[in-house]
Amino acid sequence: MNSLTQHTVKSFDDELHALTAKLAAMGGQAEQIIDQAVTALANDDLALASQVIADDALLDQAQREVDDMAISLLARRQPMAQDLREILSAIRISAELERVGDMGKNIAKRVVAMSGTNHPSKLYRGLQALSELARTQLKDVLDAYASRSVDRLAYLRDRDNQIDAMYTSLFRELLTYMMEDPRNISTCTHLLFCAKNIERIGDHATNVAEILYYIVTGQQLDHHRAKDDETHRVTGMPIA
Amino acid sequence: MNSLTQHTVKSFDDELHALTAKLAAMGGQAEQIIDQAVTALANDDLALASQVIADDALLDQAQREVDDMAISLLARRQPMAQDLREILSAIRISAELERVGDMGKNIAKRVVAMSGTNHPSKLYRGLQALSELARTQLKDVLDAYASRSVDRLAYLRDRDNQIDAMYTSLFRELLTYMMEDPRNISTCTHLLFCAKNIERIGDHATNVAEILYYIVTGQQLDHHRAKDDETHRVTGMPIA
Repeated sequence: MNSLTQHTVKSFDDELHALTAKLAAMGGQAEQIIDQAVTALANDDLALASQVIADDALLDQAQREVDDMAISLLARRQPMAQDLREILSAIRISAELERVGDMGKNIAKRVVAMSGTNHPSKLYRGLQALSELARTQLKDVLDAYASRSVDRLAYLRDRDNQIDAMYTSLFRELLTYMMEDPRNISTCTHLLFCAKNIERIGDHATNVAEILYYIVTGQQLDHHRAKDDETHRVTGMPIA
Repeated sequence: MNSLTQHTVKSFDDELHALTAKLAAMGGQAEQIIDQAVTALANDDLALASQVIADDALLDQAQREVDDMAISLLARRQPMAQDLREILSAIRISAELERVGDMGKNIAKRVVAMSGTNHPSKLYRGLQALSELARTQLKDVLDAYASRSVDRLAYLRDRDNQIDAMYTSLFRELLTYMMEDPRNISTCTHLLFCAKNIERIGDHATNVAEILYYIVTGQQLDHHRAKDDETHRVTGMPIA
């Protein structure tokens, strides 16, 4: 194709498609960042942790590109109704995915602090299970977004509650390890924050699901789901 | 004034003014939520903690109203250039302020878990100083937004670094208390998460400052400041 046969002005649909394709790519990057961050943690892999931190910077850059594309579309095309919602939602979803990347980066940075110390692998098992659930949640939410399907929104909300419950259970478990042996305190504190980061990935996925609902229906979900975990209820534990 | 003398169609400027006034009110509510949450924590005041949780729901509602106003403005007025940026930024800033409210709510919920247990007040002092700094930061950022002034952006960024440094220092201190006496573990863990919530308020304030820069200049800040704390560097502390 030479320059004469190229369309120099894309159609609105083409531009919208490019925007959502960019978002889909961001989603894939975010999933990978989570996966690699938790793998780096479990394997004490400092090289992989560094890679995660570098990849998060690429995700930040992708967010700025999505925003610029969206704002340019808004300014030039002045879309209405669902097209307007699509574009506003792209800005919101890119922000959620950028935050997911930050959660991965936060975990990767803690790998450094915990490196070289000998810790029982049981400390990591719960975290891996939690991250597996959060990553599945993110993937399913992004699939729902790709197909503009709101059929499974109730199911996805239920699963966010599962993530919260698993996180609270892990919180208790880590607290118990700390009480059993004060030498675990430093590591378990880092793991508590890693677990919290993963729980927040679930929240970001649920936010994307709510944005999807808005795109499809034009309505904001009225009931604002609690974005917090339940660990504030963990109290008065016996000291082992 | 009777109905005949009322303007039924507001000017664009009036609508924009109503939008930013609503945001300013949200900012005031967010500041109050933080203040009351930390006061409730320091005074073991369960009634005030409940109030904070109720107030956060009002802030969530205000966010939805700002979004609806902004989207309606975009659809009807199809603004360009700085007007477009103003409206998009209102959506972003309301999201940041809603998250600040969530941070206050998270702290209030932990007041319940920690209630009735006897803890040395020294555990709370660092938290109060941190929250004072974060609240001042939020107030100054909102003042800068109200006057559309980017003069102090560098200063505000520096102060976010101060918040991060104070948080890291508090993190170390709380870890030390845990190691000194395992009976402190449960409370100190809750306080660690409260401190993290306050540190994140500083991040949200800085995000608002960056959005302000975008409104005024039309440029996104290229260098994405690290949104993370430095506690991942806290490692290998001696056990008392």
